Amino acid sequence: MQSQNLLYEGKGKRLYKIDNTDTLLSVFKDDLTAFNAQKKSSEKGKGSLNCQISSQIFKILESKNIKTHFIQTLNDNTMLCKKVQIIPIEVVVRNIATGSLIKRLGIAESLIIKDTPLRQPLVEFYYKDDALGDPIITDSHCLMMNLITSEEIKILKTIALQVNEILQEYFDRAGLNLIDFKLEFGRDKDNTIILADEISPDSCRLWDKVTHKKMDKDIFRQNLGSVTSAYKEVLERLNNL
Amino acid sequence: MQSQNLLYEGKGKRLYKIDNTDTLLSVFKDDLTAFNAQKKSSEKGKGSLNCQISSQIFKILESKNIKTHFIQTLNDNTMLCKKVQIIPIEVVVRNIATGSLIKRLGIAESLIIKDTPLRQPLVEFYYKDDALGDPIITDSHCLMMNLITSEEIKILKTIALQVNEILQEYFDRAGLNLIDFKLEFGRDKDNTIILADEISPDSCRLWDKVTHKKMDKDIFRQNLGSVTSAYKEVLERLNNL
Ligand SMILES: Nc1ncnc2c1ncn2[C@@H]1O[C@H](COP(=O)(O)OP(=O)(O)OP(=O)(O)O)[C@@H](O)[C@H]1O
Ligand SMILES: Nc1ncnc2c1ncn2[C@@H]1O[C@H](COP(=O)(O)OP(=O)(O)OP(=O)(O)O)[C@@H](O)[C@H]1O
Ligand SMILES: [Mg+2]
Ligand SMILES: [Mg+2]
Repeated sequence: MQSQNLLYEGKGKRLYKIDNTDTLLSVFKDDLTAFNAQKKSSEKGKGSLNCQISSQIFKILESKNIKTHFIQTLNDNTMLCKKVQIIPIEVVVRNIATGSLIKRLGIAESLIIKDTPLRQPLVEFYYKDDALGDPIITDSHCLMMNLITSEEIKILKTIALQVNEILQEYFDRAGLNLIDFKLEFGRDKDNTIILADEISPDSCRLWDKVTHKKMDKDIFRQNLGSVTSAYKEVLERLNNL
Repeated sequence: MQSQNLLYEGKGKRLYKIDNTDTLLSVFKDDLTAFNAQKKSSEKGKGSLNCQISSQIFKILESKNIKTHFIQTLNDNTMLCKKVQIIPIEVVVRNIATGSLIKRLGIAESLIIKDTPLRQPLVEFYYKDDALGDPIITDSHCLMMNLITSEEIKILKTIALQVNEILQEYFDRAGLNLIDFKLEFGRDKDNTIILADEISPDSCRLWDKVTHKKMDKDIFRQNLGSVTSAYKEVLERLNNL
């Protein structure tokens, strides 16, 4: 990758432009950050594991007719993607209440949201702005700030819940509970809203179905050991399906 | 008031029960608090001004068919009210973006929300829990926490917007712009949702239409002088309508 082609360097990935195309390269880094980058580290191999897990997930979603930016994996840590205009909203889907949600609202961990027919997965929007700490926003804030239209809010929520259904089933087959995850969406050259960014143990909470062991970035957040050994096991389980 | 009848002492009011009735006494205090009670003060006469302003506002709302807990004013700082089960949601309506909203979302002050036909007053819900700092919540959080039903969410938003229409017009006649305000609702003995608590310069932002001078609790928050002299002017202007 030539450095003059670097479009953006984020906390987890570098994006490189490919001239005269609507595509870009997403190169996954080994860096780990948490709590709005106040906590930092790095583990060799983390980027490549996330790139491969994310690729598998995008393939599954594409096979179920969810449109994503994924084109193909070029090597262990490099994904060829459609270039999009990212919508600055982090869409979070939660099946079990944990993390910032239970701290913010003072509710008990492991309140299983799907435990009765009345209860459903929770979809939340966060305004993607590191300087503001990604504040939570309502539909009305999205409209007020012209981030998105009412119709697009419905589209995001619908796709997010479809992704949840697909990935819950997919991870379940790999012996993993999908606790929650974050999605990013973008508009492609035709202005179609498609799924972008990554879906990996950095952006999902995954707990072993039997042991309830955490197999995601909470290992890093909570100093529970090596993330790469857990992410490797996630990848192996997905590869063995 | 007999102290054994004290039901609740809050930051701004004391509630006293009246035996064998569905009513209570709300006695307005002179205490001033801001920033979740981190900043405290007191101004003699503030409670009585708020009680009288709040009474005027509840009367206007009742005359426009909005159901409230207001029965009558017993003396300068004491209101006789219907006793309700308070719904633990602070409903905020904003006509102009200022205060915590613009800090949290990094938007410019005085973005007038009603400046184009597309834009509308913003309704926000905050979970009423001092220990958690009254966190903002979405409709989905309300349902998840069983605070309220979907139907009741619609009712709260509809009443809040009706109150906004009525009070914008009312304050406008008094030379004041209604910038934003907070409402609390409760369920009365028949389980009907009615407006409760207070509506005063402690819970509204009011700016003079001409000079843009603040005539509300921001005077205290921002050390801009005496609140009572401003609240007194608000009451006088309302009394002169
Ligand atoms: N297909 C795509 N086209 C354009 N931008 C993309 C695409 N996929 C992801 N992005 C954006 O590229 C960046 C990826 O980098 P990374 O995830 O490391 O960023 P980050 O440090 O998390 O910062 P941010 O808060 O912006 O996500 C993100 O801003 C993401 O929104
Ligand atoms: N008609 C009513 N019946 C029962 N409770 C009421 C009624 N009107 C208001 N309340 C409640 O009484 C309390 C009024 O006290 P005050 O406003 O001083 O409380 P506060 O310090 O603001 O605390 P809070 O955070 O509970 O509002 C509030 O909790 C309010 O919700
Ligand atoms: Mg990112
Ligand atoms: Mg109060």
